[in-house]
Amino acid sequence: MRKTKKHKAGIVSLVGAGPGDTGLMTLKGFRALQTAEAVVYDWLINPELLAWCPNAEKIYAGKHTRESTRKSDGRGCASQDAINRTLARLAKKGLKTVRLKGGDPFVFGRGGEEASYLQKHGIPFEVIPGVSAGHAVPAYAGIPVTDRRYASSVTFVTGHTRDGNEQINLNWKALAALGGTLVSFMGVKNLNSITQSLIRAGLPSKTPVAVIEWGTLAKQRVVEGVLGTIARKVKTKKIESPAITVIGQVNSLRKELRWFEKRPLSDKTVLVTRARAQASGLKKMLEEEGARVLEFPVIQIEPPRDFTPLDRALQSLAVFDWVVFTSANAVQSVFDRLRHLGRDARHFASVSIAAVGTATAEALQNQGLTA
Amino acid sequence: MRKTKKHKAGIVSLVGAGPGDTGLMTLKGFRALQTAEAVVYDWLINPELLAWCPNAEKIYAGKHTRESTRKSDGRGCASQDAINRTLARLAKKGLKTVRLKGGDPFVFGRGGEEASYLQKHGIPFEVIPGVSAGHAVPAYAGIPVTDRRYASSVTFVTGHTRDGNEQINLNWKALAALGGTLVSFMGVKNLNSITQSLIRAGLPSKTPVAVIEWGTLAKQRVVEGVLGTIARKVKTKKIESPAITVIGQVNSLRKELRWFEKRPLSDKTVLVTRARAQASGLKKMLEEEGARVLEFPVIQIEPPRDFTPLDRALQSLAVFDWVVFTSANAVQSVFDRLRHLGRDARHFASVSIAAVGTATAEALQNQGLTA
Repeated sequence: MRKTKKHKAGIVSLVGAGPGDTGLMTLKGFRALQTAEAVVYDWLINPELLAWCPNAEKIYAGKHTRESTRKSDGRGCASQDAINRTLARLAKKGLKTVRLKGGDPFVFGRGGEEASYLQKHGIPFEVIPGVSAGHAVPAYAGIPVTDRRYASSVTFVTGHTRDGNEQINLNWKALAALGGTLVSFMGVKNLNSITQSLIRAGLPSKTPVAVIEWGTLAKQRVVEGVLGTIARKVKTKKIESPAITVIGQVNSLRKELRWFEKRPLSDKTVLVTRARAQASGLKKMLEEEGARVLEFPVIQIEPPRDFTPLDRALQSLAVFDWVVFTSANAVQSVFDRLRHLGRDARHFASVSIAAVGTATAEALQNQGLTA
Repeated sequence: MRKTKKHKAGIVSLVGAGPGDTGLMTLKGFRALQTAEAVVYDWLINPELLAWCPNAEKIYAGKHTRESTRKSDGRGCASQDAINRTLARLAKKGLKTVRLKGGDPFVFGRGGEEASYLQKHGIPFEVIPGVSAGHAVPAYAGIPVTDRRYASSVTFVTGHTRDGNEQINLNWKALAALGGTLVSFMGVKNLNSITQSLIRAGLPSKTPVAVIEWGTLAKQRVVEGVLGTIARKVKTKKIESPAITVIGQVNSLRKELRWFEKRPLSDKTVLVTRARAQASGLKKMLEEEGARVLEFPVIQIEPPRDFTPLDRALQSLAVFDWVVFTSANAVQSVFDRLRHLGRDARHFASVSIAAVGTATAEALQNQGLTA
């Protein structure tokens, strides 16, 4: 057993990271990241996700998702072949490998090709689906893609453009005749070609369209219009990739359902000046109310340059009646030092303990002391 | 401020629970459940999710998702109007309310109608998208719905059948001509009608089809066939709702990519006999290897009927040199009792501490003692 273990290939988890908001990561994906030994990630991956796997080897796979490039352009974008080989190499080294992809790995994510390659090379894999941008980005813009008042189908489309040409392999006539919602994952640079093709195929030029840039993130922007003129409008507003385009009558619901932009702190940028280790709770709360949060810690909690006074006090605790802790930071510092000196909570056996504030009392409780 | 607070409506979170596997819940959805004061949930919701909100008022909304019933049938199935009113009532009471829906709330989930109702009644809401069954269920069956080797679009469809009639409002000709993957959320009872409509509309009767029952769960079953004969096969195999139907050439990838059924413990049922509080870690590990886990705790950790011996020992610790903790349970029990007696870790000031095993030592560390 021991002998073969050395050669056992690590599993590759094809993980969907969702459309951008890190809160849309799945629990299973989160656990896979936390235990990953190697992570191969795409262009659109929210950098905050990589903080969840601090010990993993991280490999950037380049700009692939939502964009179609058949070949590597040689500028920081690995070809699909190279990515496949990287995944196989990591797994063969026995590493638990996460292939982290924007949205869902099997919705225009080329996860199928990677899985086929791994299967052919005898490497075990699993798929951890993600929230697809195809419906979640519209949802953050207040557009329910299949609302039965307007649609009984939704179609996600992409195009395989080669060398910048606009030869998109889609049956426009069928798409126009379908009568449901159409969601395009194609880059905005193709928008004029798409809208013109649909109009030529019979879709009314007055069909409502919404283009959503950086959907689900605080910097989300939405441009609304109609099929005939949206491409020009998007160009004027300088909308760029990543963007999702929604075509169909469901867009008319946006005017009442645009919840994301109506949150109390939407369009607000908040500077958080707390020490970084303490800022994350506040940051999350602010972000959930819609704010864009910048961290700028002007307070930094540092250990004292000289521990002598603290050590002296700790060594002569018997002369004190009470020890009063004034903050959770104080509790942490004192116990860090206590452990450094090889002692634990029992050291406080002779004194009474008081705490300022419930957070301080909780911190004490976690260290084994009831204030 | 205080006066208005009493009348402030609680927010309603429309949360997508994903297709079944609780690991596919999003982090944001998980947090919303944990802090919910009321949860209104659908038929297909995995009961394990409700354990995440033990303190919330739980209201069953009946059989709605993936199935189309325009009106309440009066048998344990609330009408959409009744659900809307319930959500508004809970929010107006000031309760933080989660509307928990299978898959994604805006993909055939009627989330749009609920959001419209809340908006009209001035109740704040947010949408927390979920992983849609439309691509995740096929993914667990090894089918990448948009694999570019076979498809450049995927269409999710449902039908609005009234009173059991099969008048499905879809353009079959356009669907057949589209050339992409078709995923039907309609119940298996409609399967014969769907396949016949597609064949009449020109889709070859040899087009591969997969029907997936209870997708993403250990009890997942997949029936494969072709458009012409799948309905009969599904009937023979007694496939029932919930089921997802995938139509298109992408199904041919399943034979190599069916990872979920190939996991080491797939098709195995494991009986876990550990005490329930300790079983969950083991259960998760087994499930991730593919096993179906039944919990049958034959060990139960109970407090002693008589605490006198423990109390006596704790009160005369000074006569002991060492205290040896043999398990994490022992640490927990002793400290529970210690706190009951109004003492804390300082009580062990006069003795040396030993631990059997690293888990026990860790449990001690959490109580403030270094073994």
